[in-house]
Amino acid sequence: MKIGFIGLGIMGKPMAKNLLKAGYDLTVNDLVKEAVDELVAAGAKAASKEEIGRTCDLVMTMVPNSPQVKEIMLGEHGVANYMRPGTTFIDMSSINPIASREIAAALAEKGIEMLDAPVSGGEPKAIDGTLSFMVGGKKEVFEKFKPVLSAMGSSVVLCGDIGAGNTTKLANQIIVALNIAACSEAFTLAKMAGVDPQLVFQAIRGGLAGSTVMDAKVPMMIEGNFKPGFKIDLHIKDLNNALECGHAVGAPLPLTSIVQDFLYNLHKDGRGQDDHSSIANYYAKLSGINIGK
Amino acid sequence: MKIGFIGLGIMGKPMAKNLLKAGYDLTVNDLVKEAVDELVAAGAKAASKEEIGRTCDLVMTMVPNSPQVKEIMLGEHGVANYMRPGTTFIDMSSINPIASREIAAALAEKGIEMLDAPVSGGEPKAIDGTLSFMVGGKKEVFEKFKPVLSAMGSSVVLCGDIGAGNTTKLANQIIVALNIAACSEAFTLAKMAGVDPQLVFQAIRGGLAGSTVMDAKVPMMIEGNFKPGFKIDLHIKDLNNALECGHAVGAPLPLTSIVQDFLYNLHKDGRGQDDHSSIANYYAKLSGINIGK
Repeated sequence: MKIGFIGLGIMGKPMAKNLLKAGYDLTVNDLVKEAVDELVAAGAKAASKEEIGRTCDLVMTMVPNSPQVKEIMLGEHGVANYMRPGTTFIDMSSINPIASREIAAALAEKGIEMLDAPVSGGEPKAIDGTLSFMVGGKKEVFEKFKPVLSAMGSSVVLCGDIGAGNTTKLANQIIVALNIAACSEAFTLAKMAGVDPQLVFQAIRGGLAGSTVMDAKVPMMIEGNFKPGFKIDLHIKDLNNALECGHAVGAPLPLTSIVQDFLYNLHKDGRGQDDHSSIANYYAKLSGINIGK
Repeated sequence: MKIGFIGLGIMGKPMAKNLLKAGYDLTVNDLVKEAVDELVAAGAKAASKEEIGRTCDLVMTMVPNSPQVKEIMLGEHGVANYMRPGTTFIDMSSINPIASREIAAALAEKGIEMLDAPVSGGEPKAIDGTLSFMVGGKKEVFEKFKPVLSAMGSSVVLCGDIGAGNTTKLANQIIVALNIAACSEAFTLAKMAGVDPQLVFQAIRGGLAGSTVMDAKVPMMIEGNFKPGFKIDLHIKDLNNALECGHAVGAPLPLTSIVQDFLYNLHKDGRGQDDHSSIANYYAKLSGINIGK
């Protein structure tokens, strides 16, 4: 099986390397020549998007958002123009599930199957090959390509039909953003009411308020360390997709809407490259105090 | 040491029984005669509030909210009128920490020490004697009475000066309410976008979105089981205290304010006695679909 891999960014590069390590025949493409050269040095071939379309049995993308996936696959010189019927496309980008379905419908007309397979876990897990894949698509397509995804991830779960991977990812990102905001709001109140946030953390983390977000992010807020991690600007992109998807299906998103407003305010303040735990700084700006020192 | 215990409700009754089991000399008082009789049958003495004030070394209350604590202790025939200097008051109710400080200040003028010691864990842990106490007050007073609290709880943590127990409890209740709302919002979106909530739950619970709230409450939402647990009406009381406290100290509470609005709407719809996971029903009302069947 020949695999074409488009998008060698922070995530895509280590993911492609893990496919090479697993022995797959890999052809890569990216706008950044250095990224392509690095993969070629590791054993991949380099090719144009047209050549990838003509020669590969499976095409994979790992790019920023829906418009990039649409342009790469369905644009004037899009890869799908050159792919044969019976081939498959797997998009691992985190995009709007509505867009995933639109792309899948366009590909289906050409006899091309598709899975949406966004990941969680970030760069460290991309390097280790321990990402979590949330997948949408037909069960038989999923089963056929699960080994390919397993070369890059330790958890590969079919969540439903096409779009279900990205829908699940959006649900995940909503809960993470809102729980970070909840911790920011609660710990800011505690600090302003004169209680040491570290003692609050110790007192409540074992109870019903406890969460992976609390354990991972509240110590960062207390230390005043906002090194990413997962960046505010990327969370803005994910919540935009959640809001677009919610508006399309009629889902109420009152809290997501407000927290997105917090994120845009942080971006405006130059904090777009901060870790998303920097939501605490929105509360610091309003209150005049930091949770940490 | 003679202990007076006022407030034999759902929580207070089993807590008082655990003090008797631990061998404490207990005198009780409550508006409900049956509750008093039950404790007398278990070995307690019954007495008026005045007699409790005159005879006890330690007075404890477990009542609904700040006004009840103030009335019982500082009202015209309040217990504090009869307590001797050198005695101690421990309020285990969940109240506004500002009120805890006001009561402590009034008692200090009479030479009476005070701890605020709200609990989490609910009726089952009150019965088992495994409550978590979050305590505010002077360290030496805390150390002296920690064994009394330990007869009713498995975790007894000093969080800071007077009011710190209730402040910590409010932080806990904010995070719990907001995380339940976050899960409700995210799972409603997933369901409306055509994805099985059970598969979303399985896919994301092990990652950054995972929490004790998700594990405890999302299965209830999926089953459509809103049997308490912790009631909407009690969470309304706690968030009112959080908002009052926040307004007093100038803390921004944008998300708490909105989720409190959800809770009042559920109360209006006759869901005040539901478990707080019923926040999912606010989203069901807006969206026209249930997360569960």
